[in-house]
Amino acid sequence: MEIAVVGLGKMGYNLALNMKEHNHKVVVYNRSHEKINQAQQDGFIGTYSLEEMVSSLSTPRIIWLMIPAGSAVDEVLSELIPLLDKGDIVIDGGNSNYKDTLSRYEMLKEKDIKFIDIGTSGGIEGARNGACMMIGAEEDAFNIVEPIIKDICVEKGYLHTGRSGSGHYVKMIHNGIEYAMLQAIGEGFEILEKSQFQLNFEEISRVWSHGSVIRGWLMELMERAFKSDPHLDSIKGVINSSGEGLWTVEEALSLEVPAHTIASSLFLRYRSQQDDTFSGKVIAALRNEFGGHSVEKK
Amino acid sequence: MEIAVVGLGKMGYNLALNMKEHNHKVVVYNRSHEKINQAQQDGFIGTYSLEEMVSSLSTPRIIWLMIPAGSAVDEVLSELIPLLDKGDIVIDGGNSNYKDTLSRYEMLKEKDIKFIDIGTSGGIEGARNGACMMIGAEEDAFNIVEPIIKDICVEKGYLHTGRSGSGHYVKMIHNGIEYAMLQAIGEGFEILEKSQFQLNFEEISRVWSHGSVIRGWLMELMERAFKSDPHLDSIKGVINSSGEGLWTVEEALSLEVPAHTIASSLFLRYRSQQDDTFSGKVIAALRNEFGGHSVEKK
Repeated sequence: MEIAVVGLGKMGYNLALNMKEHNHKVVVYNRSHEKINQAQQDGFIGTYSLEEMVSSLSTPRIIWLMIPAGSAVDEVLSELIPLLDKGDIVIDGGNSNYKDTLSRYEMLKEKDIKFIDIGTSGGIEGARNGACMMIGAEEDAFNIVEPIIKDICVEKGYLHTGRSGSGHYVKMIHNGIEYAMLQAIGEGFEILEKSQFQLNFEEISRVWSHGSVIRGWLMELMERAFKSDPHLDSIKGVINSSGEGLWTVEEALSLEVPAHTIASSLFLRYRSQQDDTFSGKVIAALRNEFGGHSVEKK
Repeated sequence: MEIAVVGLGKMGYNLALNMKEHNHKVVVYNRSHEKINQAQQDGFIGTYSLEEMVSSLSTPRIIWLMIPAGSAVDEVLSELIPLLDKGDIVIDGGNSNYKDTLSRYEMLKEKDIKFIDIGTSGGIEGARNGACMMIGAEEDAFNIVEPIIKDICVEKGYLHTGRSGSGHYVKMIHNGIEYAMLQAIGEGFEILEKSQFQLNFEEISRVWSHGSVIRGWLMELMERAFKSDPHLDSIKGVINSSGEGLWTVEEALSLEVPAHTIASSLFLRYRSQQDDTFSGKVIAALRNEFGGHSVEKK
């Protein structure tokens, strides 16, 4: 098939390589032109404007956006839409908020342009060698793009989750679960690290990856991380978050679901970015006031 | 090799079958005699007392206990020890508290009996077809039993974690992580279940099991559970706990590790067993007192 990929970041570029390897004709576009040059050297059809990209595709066009969630998507869409024809298909393969996806779907529907939301999991390795995709789409649009999705995912690794928005929704919840799983693993190893036993974390990750109840990809990655840095001495425990965890907690609040572990995991990411806390100061000040407990001075 | 298995519950029996299948001579003993009869029909050497069991093993004897944690282990040990000789090996393959394990190790060491603690993961299927084992033991004792452990575990699925107690310790932390992972998965699906989308949980579990970041055995089991009951209508969300989660939290408290998700998961298991809560009544009463907020009457 013929497809355009917009956005040649780590995920986008590896997905594009994956598509090309499956003999699809892949036209690429990226805001920064250096990446397009590199892509051309790698055998892609590089285009240097959305106009050039659109005109090098036959209709109905399939255009796969792999760009950061938020205003970047709206900016590309507002430039792109006037260039498209009825029946063309735009895929948002990034981590967009499903509420934005629902609005964009409605906006494009008015112009008879099909809009598909795909939540992509499996990291960079997955993008390159076989991803996991959750696809929100109307049936007919899904049917058109299914062959290419099938090619770039692992076996059984894609699902038409339902109507528009559901792909990004299910991916959001996937990431919420991931937040709490990561936190669980972190807490477990922190106890091991402080314990009275001399333990080899790489070996423990390995044995937990083979036959245990908690085996899975995250534990395999844990083994790899401990292999290169047995006590993680070279890094700091500061964790960023890109939105999906927050949105999962917002959704839990909106639906009144008691999501203790996912919410805690998000708060602990915020805590990890603080050197000191105002809440800690408040508590120290109050304990000093009522009980004369000493406070640490700056 | 020649080995005795004490305790023919689901885990013990399947481990014994696994050993026999690997051509070990397996002598079995169980408190209730019906299970011994069944075991004899299945080709085991059934013995009807610890004396008979001990006398049917050549020295150094290897005796694998697979019995519930707590007083049951102490009772069997107190009966068993007088029957044993120096150099014999007793394995506790159950979910004992590592502090009990450390005491028992010391007690048996005084009698020159080797005591090995093994944390066993992988569930009943693992016990039968290939388990995951964390082994706390002195080097020489480990070397003696390693061949049989190698046979009954999956490849790379066993680890000599270190000195006595460390096997049960690492297994305890494994279960603590498991508590929070289960809770994370539960929270995620509860949000999906209450969401505006019509979602197929079996299919979502399947796609998350293929190529996603959160893929692992638990997600595969989730697919199986939803396959037989698509909305889990037939069961209640009441969760028991057997000790390992509690001990992990106790250990976190003792080492001052902020283990938010593991502790929350344990508390939520307790909450799942309550129909109503006294804390809820307290809050409702107070809100009524200060703000006139209505309370629900019994």
